[in-house]
Amino acid sequence: MRPSKRDFDEMRAISFERGVSKHAEGSCLVKFGDTHVLCTASLEEKVPSWLRNAGKGWVTAEYGMLPRSTGDRMRREAASGKQGGRTLEIQRLIGRSLRAVVDLQALGERQITVDCDVIQADGGTRTASITGAWVALYDCLRWMETRQMITLQKVLKDHVAAISCGIHDGHPVLDLDYLEDSSAGTDANFVMTGTGGIVEIQGTAEGEPFTEEQFATLMGLARKGITRLVDLQKMAVN
Amino acid sequence: MRPSKRDFDEMRAISFERGVSKHAEGSCLVKFGDTHVLCTASLEEKVPSWLRNAGKGWVTAEYGMLPRSTGDRMRREAASGKQGGRTLEIQRLIGRSLRAVVDLQALGERQITVDCDVIQADGGTRTASITGAWVALYDCLRWMETRQMITLQKVLKDHVAAISCGIHDGHPVLDLDYLEDSSAGTDANFVMTGTGGIVEIQGTAEGEPFTEEQFATLMGLARKGITRLVDLQKMAVN
Amino acid sequence: MRPSKRDFDEMRAISFERGVSKHAEGSCLVKFGDTHVLCTASLEEKVPSWLRNAGKGWVTAEYGMLPRSTGDRMRREAASGKQGGRTLEIQRLIGRSLRAVVDLQALGERQITVDCDVIQADGGTRTASITGAWVALYDCLRWMETRQMITLQKVLKDHVAAISCGIHDGHPVLDLDYLEDSSAGTDANFVMTGTGGIVEIQGTAEGEPFTEEQFATLMGLARKGITRLVDLQKMAVN
Amino acid sequence: MRPSKRDFDEMRAISFERGVSKHAEGSCLVKFGDTHVLCTASLEEKVPSWLRNAGKGWVTAEYGMLPRSTGDRMRREAASGKQGGRTLEIQRLIGRSLRAVVDLQALGERQITVDCDVIQADGGTRTASITGAWVALYDCLRWMETRQMITLQKVLKDHVAAISCGIHDGHPVLDLDYLEDSSAGTDANFVMTGTGGIVEIQGTAEGEPFTEEQFATLMGLARKGITRLVDLQKMAVN
Amino acid sequence: MRPSKRDFDEMRAISFERGVSKHAEGSCLVKFGDTHVLCTASLEEKVPSWLRNAGKGWVTAEYGMLPRSTGDRMRREAASGKQGGRTLEIQRLIGRSLRAVVDLQALGERQITVDCDVIQADGGTRTASITGAWVALYDCLRWMETRQMITLQKVLKDHVAAISCGIHDGHPVLDLDYLEDSSAGTDANFVMTGTGGIVEIQGTAEGEPFTEEQFATLMGLARKGITRLVDLQKMAVN
Amino acid sequence: MRPSKRDFDEMRAISFERGVSKHAEGSCLVKFGDTHVLCTASLEEKVPSWLRNAGKGWVTAEYGMLPRSTGDRMRREAASGKQGGRTLEIQRLIGRSLRAVVDLQALGERQITVDCDVIQADGGTRTASITGAWVALYDCLRWMETRQMITLQKVLKDHVAAISCGIHDGHPVLDLDYLEDSSAGTDANFVMTGTGGIVEIQGTAEGEPFTEEQFATLMGLARKGITRLVDLQKMAVN
Repeated sequence: MRPSKRDFDEMRAISFERGVSKHAEGSCLVKFGDTHVLCTASLEEKVPSWLRNAGKGWVTAEYGMLPRSTGDRMRREAASGKQGGRTLEIQRLIGRSLRAVVDLQALGERQITVDCDVIQADGGTRTASITGAWVALYDCLRWMETRQMITLQKVLKDHVAAISCGIHDGHPVLDLDYLEDSSAGTDANFVMTGTGGIVEIQGTAEGEPFTEEQFATLMGLARKGITRLVDLQKMAVN
Repeated sequence: MRPSKRDFDEMRAISFERGVSKHAEGSCLVKFGDTHVLCTASLEEKVPSWLRNAGKGWVTAEYGMLPRSTGDRMRREAASGKQGGRTLEIQRLIGRSLRAVVDLQALGERQITVDCDVIQADGGTRTASITGAWVALYDCLRWMETRQMITLQKVLKDHVAAISCGIHDGHPVLDLDYLEDSSAGTDANFVMTGTGGIVEIQGTAEGEPFTEEQFATLMGLARKGITRLVDLQKMAVN
Repeated sequence: MRPSKRDFDEMRAISFERGVSKHAEGSCLVKFGDTHVLCTASLEEKVPSWLRNAGKGWVTAEYGMLPRSTGDRMRREAASGKQGGRTLEIQRLIGRSLRAVVDLQALGERQITVDCDVIQADGGTRTASITGAWVALYDCLRWMETRQMITLQKVLKDHVAAISCGIHDGHPVLDLDYLEDSSAGTDANFVMTGTGGIVEIQGTAEGEPFTEEQFATLMGLARKGITRLVDLQKMAVN
Repeated sequence: MRPSKRDFDEMRAISFERGVSKHAEGSCLVKFGDTHVLCTASLEEKVPSWLRNAGKGWVTAEYGMLPRSTGDRMRREAASGKQGGRTLEIQRLIGRSLRAVVDLQALGERQITVDCDVIQADGGTRTASITGAWVALYDCLRWMETRQMITLQKVLKDHVAAISCGIHDGHPVLDLDYLEDSSAGTDANFVMTGTGGIVEIQGTAEGEPFTEEQFATLMGLARKGITRLVDLQKMAVN
Repeated sequence: MRPSKRDFDEMRAISFERGVSKHAEGSCLVKFGDTHVLCTASLEEKVPSWLRNAGKGWVTAEYGMLPRSTGDRMRREAASGKQGGRTLEIQRLIGRSLRAVVDLQALGERQITVDCDVIQADGGTRTASITGAWVALYDCLRWMETRQMITLQKVLKDHVAAISCGIHDGHPVLDLDYLEDSSAGTDANFVMTGTGGIVEIQGTAEGEPFTEEQFATLMGLARKGITRLVDLQKMAVN
Repeated sequence: MRPSKRDFDEMRAISFERGVSKHAEGSCLVKFGDTHVLCTASLEEKVPSWLRNAGKGWVTAEYGMLPRSTGDRMRREAASGKQGGRTLEIQRLIGRSLRAVVDLQALGERQITVDCDVIQADGGTRTASITGAWVALYDCLRWMETRQMITLQKVLKDHVAAISCGIHDGHPVLDLDYLEDSSAGTDANFVMTGTGGIVEIQGTAEGEPFTEEQFATLMGLARKGITRLVDLQKMAVN
């Protein structure tokens, strides 16, 4: 029995609320149970200096947690004067995941920055961020299409979504919440596209090393979860 | 006519949503029209080092804006490596305002940090922060009272709320939104208690200097607005 | 009786020493009693990047305290790696106050930076800084006029000066020194022009909130003090 | 044909040079072809503050690249004032990998820091670092055993080594050098123990997403490589 | 002929103004011509952590330049977020020079920090700082002696003073001002005690390397200058 | 008797290993006994912004120590967020020393950065760095000559090398190792050219001040040592 009482392959309640920001070109408040992430996509008509005059655009991401999004209040990164290693690692992952389904040439010389700010955390903030960021990006691109700046279909090649799996008390389970994550022996994050391609895999043995068989089981669970997430994204943007 | 079409002494729609955070001891999502600030109060059983063994507690505040809470995306302060002058100025103001109505002796050797994070900005973020922070602080103290840690009445001596006024197009107006604020000649922020005492006054001539009479008119408007805000706080916590 | 034995409306001995810097285009060592601030105005033939090609100039200020300007040695901000919130707040205030009396268009595409460095502190460093900065700015503009770069009268529209007031032991008093400031219940800073317009008001209740009547009394005191400061500025630059 | 002319499952020449530091308790210069990493293990008789009095020790790692270890000179991180996201990510990975095979209880209240400094880079610096860090750690623990501080067997539970794989020009290949890495469509790093347990998996699609089958092939290659690396570690420490 | 019209072995007008700070235990405004440095000595009843319980004290120095102490305004180090290499180098030199004539054991477990802040610069700021710092330190120790904390004679073993020399237009000259320094081929700073011992020598060829003979000439000049400086110090503290 | 058992004028075993970096245009692993410094020279086809369009190039240096190059592990400067005063001082010294023998006009509008990274420290890291940096620079310039970019003879005007001397236990000795350095009363570093010109002198009394005679003796020793170092450089590059 999981602490969350969910079935081993049962995800938390997932929801996407679009258009939550008055200002952003695209925005989405994504919830994976009690994990709530506000994703906003911001368009700028310029690219990073290292990409200037390369005839293509860029999609990047930033990630942050509100100080009391967590059980104990964390120190504000702006106050401590730097972003921690975990923050940098996650925002690099979100950016890579989004770029895997974007045609940067078709985007043109522009940059879209997706900010993923964790309003409330209960495990799985990076997977919720990726999954919600796609929706915010979609809306930003639709906003651009409405203004004849791009063709959405050409720029956004596929869906991308992410989910965590883990071995909890010896059993492979899907979509860990904080309590499960804290006590899981193995923790893995999978990022996949709507057509089933794998974009990113990260698996870590917190305690005992894991076997190839265990990892294959986790990947099977992840595939199931991501298929569902992509369905939910499709419903959300229709 | 104000850009917002409001009467000269009409505030925006104000609302307080309590208990919005699963983790914080007290929390409040305050809205002044399109300005939305998430306030969380976090209790720690320790005080800053300079207050150790002084037999009293501390209340402090931190302030931040999500990068795309504004019309144009701002650089994330955690990424730029420091909090700007405006941020520091505002969080010092929020902290002073709250401490004006708290009996630190009665609080005991503990610290409460109120984080005010601007989810969406449309002018008046500092006044909304102070007004909402009081509600989050109230709930945190109630949480403590429930656990027999303090007597709420003894610690929280009064309400505190804040509002901005300005001279727009020659006319004194209450509760400026971003558009009005940008074009206002004079901008003033008032912080007052429930019993009408003044805690903080900040008035700035953006263009032409202003007169004593104009300032008196602004203070009258502010008093009216703050009376209303305190009424709304009372309804919210009942 | 004030700790300083001064009458309630009596300022400290005020003096301006001009031309104290061999290098700066304008400079002034201002003394408000034991508070000594060295103000230098530096001209640069360039504007901040956000103002480029806007056909106007900029006036800005920086503020600092020597480590042992105070009773206890403070940590050097250059060594701690950042300017504190109080420093940033004060230098923003000085800059705004000066810009209130400058025609930036008439200045042309140039920047004047006024550095206010506190050599010795005894309360009222920000008001002394503003009052002395005006003199340094005046001399810088005269330097420019001598070189046919501008017409002083067109660029500098008015005087600007500042003074603090407070409620000490129940009595409103003018121009607080450090001892009085430390024990004052309410502390207010006023910035006004030579023609009596108000540029900036900052009032803070350190202990008990204050009333509108008390604040009006403080403003009356301030007006008297600033009238005197402007007279002294006039004598100094003649 | 690989750019390196190696067979698809052929690693570069691997070597471990032990005892290269006069000062460190354990040290190893590891070479994976032209990738050279100096690993030193430093023992301190104290633990991080968050682990104090927990009756166990800690093993951590730091990673750095000499400015001209790469084809183009990189900016020195000490000069730029912070460690980049990639650096933080890699040193966190090295630390986790080592801790997976260490019994922290048996280590006692001490910290071992393994510094991995890249002297020359040609791809695979993180996998070389992990593999060489194990040897430096081994020697540090042997140094401690000689001084009757610990029993090496109890503290170090297993070997740990790492290797990269990728899909180059459509073909799965083992141990990518820089040239191959730059043009590889998929890049994966595997960390495994001497008994075959998986400690960490990181797979990234640089261009096209990859399939489960492709990933399984890469894992097979990695297993083969790591078996060989562990054999070489065994020879090195005998 | 020197640009300053001085004789080759003629120093600028030197003066020491003591007691210039209301707060500091010792202070001195030292002038070497147009180079003006404010030196304050601050006593603290604690030592740096690495010296705790060692039964001796510490003397250290900090150095800074006001932004417009120089011909062109320099960026404020507090604003740029770090002290430059030159600043750190000079303050280390001042500290070493002072410690050379202090008996740290006799000082007891206390720290004296001498701040040397350049109010106006015209070459030779480091030598003026050392020479003036000794006077501030003397006064601080006398302040302590008056309070029966130490015996001045036992703590302060000797005078210390410093002077620059250089080869200007082929001729060895004493006490370079900025203009001479900028065009000098060789620049050397000497720190010596009252009894003629050498504490520190720094010689740098800005253009052509220099010879042993030239260096000996410079040292002779320096000795002459420092003898004079020590005489002036003696007159100043009598 | 010296702790190192060397004769008073005997240097440690000196060696230069060239071409140790696959990537750098010039490189040298220099050893002064157990002090090992890796020097790499990196060519860039651009100059610092303050030198742009001046028709000449620049040679600069950076210095770093690996965390466990020393007896106790030092904190990594990249992790602490800044380079210490000693680091900045040394890299400025290396840069000045190299520029003393380079014709920047003949170099053309290019920058060469010589990185000196201390792999293992046993005293004298700055003198080893300068001496080895010259070899790396030589090889970089030869690399450029091969590509017809410059004429080596015109750019590199002379050799430059450095050595430390000190007064140990009352006796002047050459080339101090760490143990000798720690207990030396006086420590001096000399930088000279191949033709015997002096480029830089730094002498510091760690304990008692020293005399002119002592200093002359140290300079004599240094001259002897540097003559030998230049001979070794000549053999190394032939």
